[in-house]
Amino acid sequence: MSAKEKPGWLIIAGLGPGDDRMVTPEVTEALSQATDIVGYIPYVARVAPRDGLTLHPSDNRVELDRARAALEMAAAGHKVVVVSSGDPGVFAMASAVFEALEGRPDWQALDIRVLPGITAMLAAAAAAGAPLGHDFCCINLSDNLKPWEVIDTRLRHAARADFAMAFYNPRSASRPEGFVKALQTLRQECGPDRLVTFARAVSTPDQRLITVTLAEATPEMADMRTVVIVGNSATRRVGRFVYSPRSAG
Amino acid sequence: MSAKEKPGWLIIAGLGPGDDRMVTPEVTEALSQATDIVGYIPYVARVAPRDGLTLHPSDNRVELDRARAALEMAAAGHKVVVVSSGDPGVFAMASAVFEALEGRPDWQALDIRVLPGITAMLAAAAAAGAPLGHDFCCINLSDNLKPWEVIDTRLRHAARADFAMAFYNPRSASRPEGFVKALQTLRQECGPDRLVTFARAVSTPDQRLITVTLAEATPEMADMRTVVIVGNSATRRVGRFVYSPRSAG
Repeated sequence: MSAKEKPGWLIIAGLGPGDDRMVTPEVTEALSQATDIVGYIPYVARVAPRDGLTLHPSDNRVELDRARAALEMAAAGHKVVVVSSGDPGVFAMASAVFEALEGRPDWQALDIRVLPGITAMLAAAAAAGAPLGHDFCCINLSDNLKPWEVIDTRLRHAARADFAMAFYNPRSASRPEGFVKALQTLRQECGPDRLVTFARAVSTPDQRLITVTLAEATPEMADMRTVVIVGNSATRRVGRFVYSPRSAG
Repeated sequence: MSAKEKPGWLIIAGLGPGDDRMVTPEVTEALSQATDIVGYIPYVARVAPRDGLTLHPSDNRVELDRARAALEMAAAGHKVVVVSSGDPGVFAMASAVFEALEGRPDWQALDIRVLPGITAMLAAAAAAGAPLGHDFCCINLSDNLKPWEVIDTRLRHAARADFAMAFYNPRSASRPEGFVKALQTLRQECGPDRLVTFARAVSTPDQRLITVTLAEATPEMADMRTVVIVGNSATRRVGRFVYSPRSAG
């Protein structure tokens, strides 16, 4: 069936954190059946070109436009995979695609599926040990789409609930002050010995993993390729590993 | 190299929620190289028998004993994979293995790795749409290893932080009252229109997915094979999907 014949479909797929051995077989199969790949430039670059496949890389911060373009193609009969790194449902393209469906019953009727992937915090936790082995929360520290006050409130509740925490997008070059403020809030809410793991570019050749105490943590330890994992009050080291015990502290 | 020659290793691997097409290639590779598979009976049953491979299925609630047995075998030169469903770092075997390392520098020196998997909440979220597309938390509702007061406090902080929430082990036959109490707490903290998704046995032939409002939710909608996802205050339906918008509500 050619790309222009109906029915088209749209799959929102997670490529995992970087290592191709963490891409699930169902995602690999979807990529092999696609006519079009849509996504942020570095993620589309992870898909090998082949005959019959059109790559549509786009820049960051155009998620809704990208979602609409993908839906237009699926409605026209294309077999479209929107790629995210990690898991598409965790601070990635799935929510943008569903937002783009609002007010468009024609697009809502399309064959749309989400294929999960290994999200960065779970790859980072695995590389460090098991710091998310007890109740935890997951917060996007970017204040691009929410006011800092919301983030600050969430950090305080998370600390008082004694959740371990995983932070995505801790620090951008353009807005480095967010993570500075997050560390200040954590220091007000948690003890100085709380363990903090900085996991950069996990599963790639650039992987760098460091665990320090909250007292030792500095903003420069994080960049936009870093996932930060803050342990709960019981999180501890054993040998070269960091883990959260299964019992509540 | 035979199983009894050094060096052995221990890998703690996630098999994903049930569908073999969600098992990552690195996990498949580890299983193919193993001499011994250790884990809870239904998870070990997912590994195909073959010559040179010994299966060690064990019952639930013996996690520390199982971890120690696996470490003993690795120390004796075996190539051991401890299998969990989902991700081994999320309410699964990784924390138990690291607990078993306490006070055992000999075991700490072993080649031990964690291979992440698709955890149930992310497979459930993908099947429903993108209900975890904004900040969220993940709580084990089993009070086997923590007092109910800790769970209740975490639920209240999570609601006040406006996190979406994913619940593991919401309801066991022996302790069904926990989820009854959780729903009571949520009704005190959240409005009646809050969306709740019950995702049972996701990615298996038994998959059943239902989304209701908090007012409509009943304890019987969950069992131990169910992951429950409670949206945040902005989580909404679009067509047949449920998603959390990328912006804070």
